[in-house]
Amino acid sequence: MIGTRSFPVDAWWVREPHLDLDLLPQTESVFALSNGHIGLRGNLDEGDPHAIPGTYLNSFYEARVLPYAEAGYGYPEDGQTVVDVTNGKIIRLLIDDEPFDVRYGKLLHHERTLDLRAGTLVRYVDWVSPAGKRVKIRSTRLVSFVQRAVAAIHYEVEAVDTEVRVIVQSELVANDDQPDLSGDPRVSAALKAPLVHVTGDLEPHGALLVHRTRRSNLLMAAGMDHVVEGPGSVQEDTVVREDWARTTVLGTLQPGETLKVVKFLAYGWSSVRSVPAVRDQVGGALTSARYSGWEGLLQSQRDYLDEFWDAADVEVEGDGVVQQAVRFGLFHVLQAGARAEGRAIPAKGLTGPGYDGHTFWDTEGFVLATLTATVPDAAADALRWRHSTLDLARERARALGLRGAAFPWRTIRGQECSAYWPAGTAAFHVNAVIAYAVERYRLVTGDQQLEIDCGLEILVETARLWMSLGHYDSAGAWHIDGVTGPDEYTALVDDNVFTNLLAARNLRAAAEGSSRHPQVAERLLVTPDECAAWRDAAGAVHIPYDEALGVHPQSERFTQYDEWDFEGTKDDYPLLLTTPYFQLYRKQVIKQADLVLAMHWCPEAFDDGQRARNVDYHEKRTVRDSTLSANTQATMCARVGHLDLAHDYLHEAALIDLRDLHGNARDGVHMASLAGAWSALVDGFGGLQVGGETLVIDPQLPSGISRLTFRVRWHGMRLLVEVTDDEVTLTLRDGGDAVDLVLCGEPVTVTADKPRTWSWTRRAPLLPRPTQPIGREPVTRA
Amino acid sequence: MIGTRSFPVDAWWVREPHLDLDLLPQTESVFALSNGHIGLRGNLDEGDPHAIPGTYLNSFYEARVLPYAEAGYGYPEDGQTVVDVTNGKIIRLLIDDEPFDVRYGKLLHHERTLDLRAGTLVRYVDWVSPAGKRVKIRSTRLVSFVQRAVAAIHYEVEAVDTEVRVIVQSELVANDDQPDLSGDPRVSAALKAPLVHVTGDLEPHGALLVHRTRRSNLLMAAGMDHVVEGPGSVQEDTVVREDWARTTVLGTLQPGETLKVVKFLAYGWSSVRSVPAVRDQVGGALTSARYSGWEGLLQSQRDYLDEFWDAADVEVEGDGVVQQAVRFGLFHVLQAGARAEGRAIPAKGLTGPGYDGHTFWDTEGFVLATLTATVPDAAADALRWRHSTLDLARERARALGLRGAAFPWRTIRGQECSAYWPAGTAAFHVNAVIAYAVERYRLVTGDQQLEIDCGLEILVETARLWMSLGHYDSAGAWHIDGVTGPDEYTALVDDNVFTNLLAARNLRAAAEGSSRHPQVAERLLVTPDECAAWRDAAGAVHIPYDEALGVHPQSERFTQYDEWDFEGTKDDYPLLLTTPYFQLYRKQVIKQADLVLAMHWCPEAFDDGQRARNVDYHEKRTVRDSTLSANTQATMCARVGHLDLAHDYLHEAALIDLRDLHGNARDGVHMASLAGAWSALVDGFGGLQVGGETLVIDPQLPSGISRLTFRVRWHGMRLLVEVTDDEVTLTLRDGGDAVDLVLCGEPVTVTADKPRTWSWTRRAPLLPRPTQPIGREPVTRA
Repeated sequence: MIGTRSFPVDAWWVREPHLDLDLLPQTESVFALSNGHIGLRGNLDEGDPHAIPGTYLNSFYEARVLPYAEAGYGYPEDGQTVVDVTNGKIIRLLIDDEPFDVRYGKLLHHERTLDLRAGTLVRYVDWVSPAGKRVKIRSTRLVSFVQRAVAAIHYEVEAVDTEVRVIVQSELVANDDQPDLSGDPRVSAALKAPLVHVTGDLEPHGALLVHRTRRSNLLMAAGMDHVVEGPGSVQEDTVVREDWARTTVLGTLQPGETLKVVKFLAYGWSSVRSVPAVRDQVGGALTSARYSGWEGLLQSQRDYLDEFWDAADVEVEGDGVVQQAVRFGLFHVLQAGARAEGRAIPAKGLTGPGYDGHTFWDTEGFVLATLTATVPDAAADALRWRHSTLDLARERARALGLRGAAFPWRTIRGQECSAYWPAGTAAFHVNAVIAYAVERYRLVTGDQQLEIDCGLEILVETARLWMSLGHYDSAGAWHIDGVTGPDEYTALVDDNVFTNLLAARNLRAAAEGSSRHPQVAERLLVTPDECAAWRDAAGAVHIPYDEALGVHPQSERFTQYDEWDFEGTKDDYPLLLTTPYFQLYRKQVIKQADLVLAMHWCPEAFDDGQRARNVDYHEKRTVRDSTLSANTQATMCARVGHLDLAHDYLHEAALIDLRDLHGNARDGVHMASLAGAWSALVDGFGGLQVGGETLVIDPQLPSGISRLTFRVRWHGMRLLVEVTDDEVTLTLRDGGDAVDLVLCGEPVTVTADKPRTWSWTRRAPLLPRPTQPIGREPVTRA
Repeated sequence: MIGTRSFPVDAWWVREPHLDLDLLPQTESVFALSNGHIGLRGNLDEGDPHAIPGTYLNSFYEARVLPYAEAGYGYPEDGQTVVDVTNGKIIRLLIDDEPFDVRYGKLLHHERTLDLRAGTLVRYVDWVSPAGKRVKIRSTRLVSFVQRAVAAIHYEVEAVDTEVRVIVQSELVANDDQPDLSGDPRVSAALKAPLVHVTGDLEPHGALLVHRTRRSNLLMAAGMDHVVEGPGSVQEDTVVREDWARTTVLGTLQPGETLKVVKFLAYGWSSVRSVPAVRDQVGGALTSARYSGWEGLLQSQRDYLDEFWDAADVEVEGDGVVQQAVRFGLFHVLQAGARAEGRAIPAKGLTGPGYDGHTFWDTEGFVLATLTATVPDAAADALRWRHSTLDLARERARALGLRGAAFPWRTIRGQECSAYWPAGTAAFHVNAVIAYAVERYRLVTGDQQLEIDCGLEILVETARLWMSLGHYDSAGAWHIDGVTGPDEYTALVDDNVFTNLLAARNLRAAAEGSSRHPQVAERLLVTPDECAAWRDAAGAVHIPYDEALGVHPQSERFTQYDEWDFEGTKDDYPLLLTTPYFQLYRKQVIKQADLVLAMHWCPEAFDDGQRARNVDYHEKRTVRDSTLSANTQATMCARVGHLDLAHDYLHEAALIDLRDLHGNARDGVHMASLAGAWSALVDGFGGLQVGGETLVIDPQLPSGISRLTFRVRWHGMRLLVEVTDDEVTLTLRDGGDAVDLVLCGEPVTVTADKPRTWSWTRRAPLLPRPTQPIGREPVTRA
C-alpha cells in the first residue's frame, strides 16, 4: 500500500514530490503514458533502477504453449503474452565520467508529475555526482494522442556551479532483461528475449530497428530521431547493433548552460505487412513528428485533452482525494482506449504486464461504460475490435459443442487463452456483457450505424450461443446450468442470476435489433421463428429467489451453502492465495459483486425491498478480493440509500492504484476499477441509468460530497449535470434542442435555451447500514 | 479391440496361438507377470520388437514438477511416475551371426501361453534364420509369489536340422528407450533416462547394477545369475558397464541338441537403506533363487497357486469365455496384490505405465473387495499401506483447510498427485471408500486386530474429515456441497448420493469402532461428544430424491439438468476425448455407475421400487466411458432381475483387456474391472452381500450360465457356494462348525458336517429391460 503522503492532493496533477525507490514498481504503472496504441511505463529515463521495464504496442504479443499436467478436450493450446518491445525511453547521462544514477551521488531534489491536462510526465532532478558535480535535469515525456505512432521526450541538462562534460546516450534497446515476476497466478509470465533481429538502419539523427517475435511471428519497428541544442560545439554520433542502437551527444556546459535533446520515437507493427512497409511506416511517423516539433506535439496533446475534459470531467467538491483520483482514473481510461482503433483494451491498458496483457469481460462491462458516455468513438472502436474476432469466437463455440459465437474469457488477439476452464470457458457471461455494451452504445449515442455494421451480428451470434447453452425444464422455465458468473469464488453453478438476466437481455436485444434492421438480419439468416424463440427463452428465464430469506441467491442454492468462517480467515486475504478453490466454491463467500452487479445493470428485475435486502445479504459475504467489486458496491449502496458507505467504496475504487490498495499496482493500473469509480459517481450518486430508451437521472449525495458535477453524452447531445446538497441543475450544452428524461422519478424536458434546476430528496435506506466480513470493511471517508 | 480368435477359449490358459505384431502393445499387458512387488511386462525375450518396455518395482517412482498454466492454492507441486527400471528380461539370441528377430527370417510357429495355474508365461518359437538355419526356442518366465524379490527365465534353444553356433546374450539394461506415448490424458508421461548409475558388480555367473533416480532419490539394485547347460564346451562371459551388464553364452549345437540357460533375476529398492544394504539384499535373493533352482521355483509357484485357486476359484458353466476371463482377472488381481506388502496396489498393477502407475479409490473399492474374500492377508496389507500414509493425508487435509485426513485421489507413495482438482481433490469419496474397505475387512474376516492396529485410526480421521466437509442446514439436514462423486462426467456437485451414503457409513463405523475399542479411541482423542456428533450427522444426512420421477438423482438437481444428445454424439466415444468437461458436467450424461454403485454398496438405503427405477433411469444415461462401470451395472442389473443384461455387462467387465474393449490395454490391465468381474458374478449372480454383520446370499442366474460355483471366506471359514438352474448348495469347508446366514431372504445355518441345498426362484423384474445410450449397449451374450 502506498501512504497518503506519496501523492499530494492536487486537482489536475499526480505529483511525486520525492523519489521513493521502494515505490518504483507502483509509480512505473501510475506514471505510465499511453495512447491506446503505444504504452510507456513510467521507468526512469536512464533505465536504472527499475522494477519492470515496459514498452508495449497494443496487441503485439508472443505465443507460448500452455502447459497442463492433466489436459482436457477443448483446452486452449497456446497462450498470448504481451511483449516488452524495443525500449525507446532510455536516455542515459554521464557527468564527466560518472553515470547519472539516483542511487549514487547526492539527490538534492527529485520530483515527477503526471499532468492530466497536458498529457505529460515531467521530471525535475537536482543531483550532485559522486565527484561533486551538480546538474539539474528536466525531462518531459509524452505519448501523442494525435500522432498515434509517436512518443517524444524533451530532455535538458543544466550545469549548476561548475563546468561539466555532459554525455547523453539516447537508446533503443530490444530484449531488455525481464525481472522474475512472482508466483502469484495473477501476474503474467515473463518472456525472455522474445524479439529476433530482422534489420537495423542508421538514420541521420538516429536509428531504426526491426524485430520479429520468435513464435507469434509478428513484425515490429522502432525508430528514434533527435534534435539537439546546446552551447558551443556539440558532437552527435549514432551506432546500430542487432538488439540496440545508440545516439551519443557530447557537450561541455558552463554553469547555467543547458544541453537540450528532443527525442522523437515512433513505433509500428504488423502481422501481415512486409519489412520495408513496417520500416517505412515508422520512418514516416518520425518525419511527421520532427516536422511538428516538440512544441507542436505538446500543443496538440493539450488541445486533445482540453476537448476530452470538456466532455468528460467530473467535479467532486468536498473530497479532494476522490476528485484527484477520479480524474487520474479518467485519464488512464482515455489513455487505454483513445487510439486503440481496432485493437483490444487490456485490463491494465498498456501500463504493465499484468494478466499477460489480456483483455477480459470488464473492458466491455466497465471501461466501455465510461468511454461510451465520454469518448463514444473509442467505445465504438473497441466494439469493432470484438466484431473482428467473431470468426474465432464462432470457431470456439463449435469446439465447445455450442452454436453462435463464444468470445474468449481472456485474450490479446481473439483466441481463448484461459487455461483454467471453470473460471474461463465456463464464464460465458462475457458474451452477454459484450452484447450489453453493443446495446448500451446504441442507447447512449442513438447511433444505429454501429449496430448495422457489426453490432447486430454480435447480438445475433451471442443470442444463438445462449440458446444452445440454456434449456427448458418440464415446467417451462428456461435454465442455464453449470456456468460461472462474475463472482470467481463460486464456479460451475446453475442459474446464476447475473448470467441469466444478461442472457435474457442479450436475447431480447438480438430480437429487437433484427426487427430494426431486417435486411441485416436476413443476411445473418435470422428467421421470425428464431426471434420468437429468443423472446420465449428471455421471457421464461428462471431467476432463483429464496422466499424464506426474501433475497435472490446469486445462483441456485447459494443461500443454502455453508457460511464462511470469516473470523478464522481474517488474516488470509486475498483468499485465492491462501485457500483452495474447492473450499471457496462451496461456501457463502463472495469475491466480487455478482448479484449486486446484476442489480446495477438490470435494475428493472428487482423491486426496492429486494434491492435493499439483496445488498444487505451480499454485503455481509463479499470480501472484495477483486478490484472489480468496490465500484459496483458503491453504486448499489448509493441506490439503496447507504450513501456514506457508497462514498467509502467509491474512494476504494478510485484510489485502487494511487494507494496500491490491492498490492499489485506494479503490474499495471486497474482500468475497470478506475472506470468504475466514474460509474460510482455518475451512476451511483448521479443516479444515471442508460439501460433503456429514456435517460434516467436520480441523484443522491453523501455527506462528504457537497457538489457533484458531471458531463454525459446522450444521442449526440452533451448534458451537464450539477448536483448540490438539495438541488440538481441540468444544462443541455449542445447537439440538440431538447432532451426528455426521467429525473428523480418524474419525466422532465431540458431545452437548449437555458439550464433547469429541480430539488431532490435524500432517500431513506430501508435497512440499516450493512456490515462486511471482518477486516474487509472499506476505509471510512468520514 | 482384439478379435475373439486371438485368445482361444481355454479354462486355465490364455494362449496366443500365433504372433500378431499389431497386438504386441496389448499382449505385453495381458501376459505381464507380477507378484505385487516386481512386475514384468510380456515383452518378447529378445527385447525387440516391443511397444512399451516395462519392468516395474512397486512404488519405485520418479518425481516431476506438475506444470500449471494457471496455478491455484493447494495444487500439488510434484507428480510421481512409475519408473521402467533395469530390464532383466532380455535374452538375445544369435544363430550363427544373425540375431533372432521375429520380423526377419521365417517364423514357422510362435505361441505364448499364460498358465493361470502354473503362474508362468511359456513361449514356443520355431524359426528359420534368414540364412536358413532352423531353431526351436522355448522360454518359460515366472515372477515368484514365494520368493518376493525373484523372477526367473528358463530359456532353451534347440538346433533342428543343421549345426548352428548359438550365442545367448542375457542382459540387464537400465534406462531403456521409452516410446512416445500419446497425448491421451489417461496415459502416463514417459520419463527419459531417470536412472543414474551408482555402482555395478561382476558376479561369478552374472552381474549386479545399482542405480538411483534423479529427482526422487530412490536406490535400486538389479542382479542376474545364470545356470547354463549344453552339449560340448559352452563358453560364458560377463561384462558390466554403467547402464548395462551382459552375460554371453556361446555353444555349438548339432541337430536335436539343446542349449539351456536358466536366468535368475532379483530386484530390490529402498528410499532409506545404503548402497551396500540394497546390493546385498539383491545378492542374497539371487543366492536363494539359485539354491531353490528352476524346478524349485516352478514347484513352489504351482503350490502357491493351487492354494489360491482352491480358495478363490469361480466356476462358470455355460459361458466358457467368461469362465476364462474371470480366472484371468483373478490371476491378475492376485498378481497385483499378493506380495505388495506395505505398498500400494496401482490401478494397473505392475502391468504397464498407465495412469503414471498411480493407485486410486478403485483399489479399495473394487480390488480389495475381491481380495478380502479370497486372499484377506493381501487386503490387510493394502490397508496397512494406506495407514502408513496417514500423516501425509493429515497434512493434505490441513492444506485444504479441513480436519482429519484427506487421502490422495491419485498417488504412488501417498502424496496427492492429481493436477486437475475438480476430478481429484474434490473427489473426497476416496476417503469413505478406504473406510468402507476397513469395515468390510472386519465384517468379512471377523478379524478385530487390523482395526485395533490401524483400521480405527483410519475410520476416525476420515470421520473427522467428513465432519469438516459437511454442514447442517436450517432444517437440520446434513449436507456435503461442492464435491465430486464417482461419476467423472459430473463434478463439484451438492449432495452426491454415493458420497453422502458412504460418508454416513464412515461416520457410523468410526463411532462403532470407537465403542468396540475404547482404549484405541482414547489414544486418538475421540470423545463421547465426538462420537455423538458423528452419529447425528450420519442420521441427518440428506439424500436427494426426485419425487416426481420416483428416482434418486445421483446428486442434487441432476435429474433437472438438460438431457444429453446421445444421437448427436454416437460416434464420439469416449466423450472425454471429444467433448469439453463444461458440457459433460451440466447435462444428464453419466460416465460410470455412481448412484448405481451406491445401491450396490449401500443396499439398505433403497427399496425394491427405487432400485428398479434408479437402474432404469441411470442405465439410459450411462455411457460407460470408464472401465469401472460395467461390473457395477452387472451386479445391480442382476439384483433388479435384468439377468441377461447383467450377463452382458459381466462379459464386458471380464473381457475388458482380453478383448481390449476400451482400446488402452497396452498401458496395463484394468485391475478394478477384472476384480469387478468377480464381484459381478459373486455379488450379482451369487447375490453375496458382506456389508452387514450377517452374510447374505441370494442367487439368480441368467439364461446363459447353467451353473455357478464360487468360494468365499467368512470369519475364517471357507464356504463353497454352488448355484444351478434352480438350486443352491452351500458347503462349509473348514474354519468353523457352523455359519448363520440369510439365504434368499431367509435365515439359515450351514454346518460343517454336510452341504445343504435349497431351491431358489427367479426374480421377476419390476420394469422392462432398460435401454442404453445409442451405441453404448453392451455386447449381447445371447
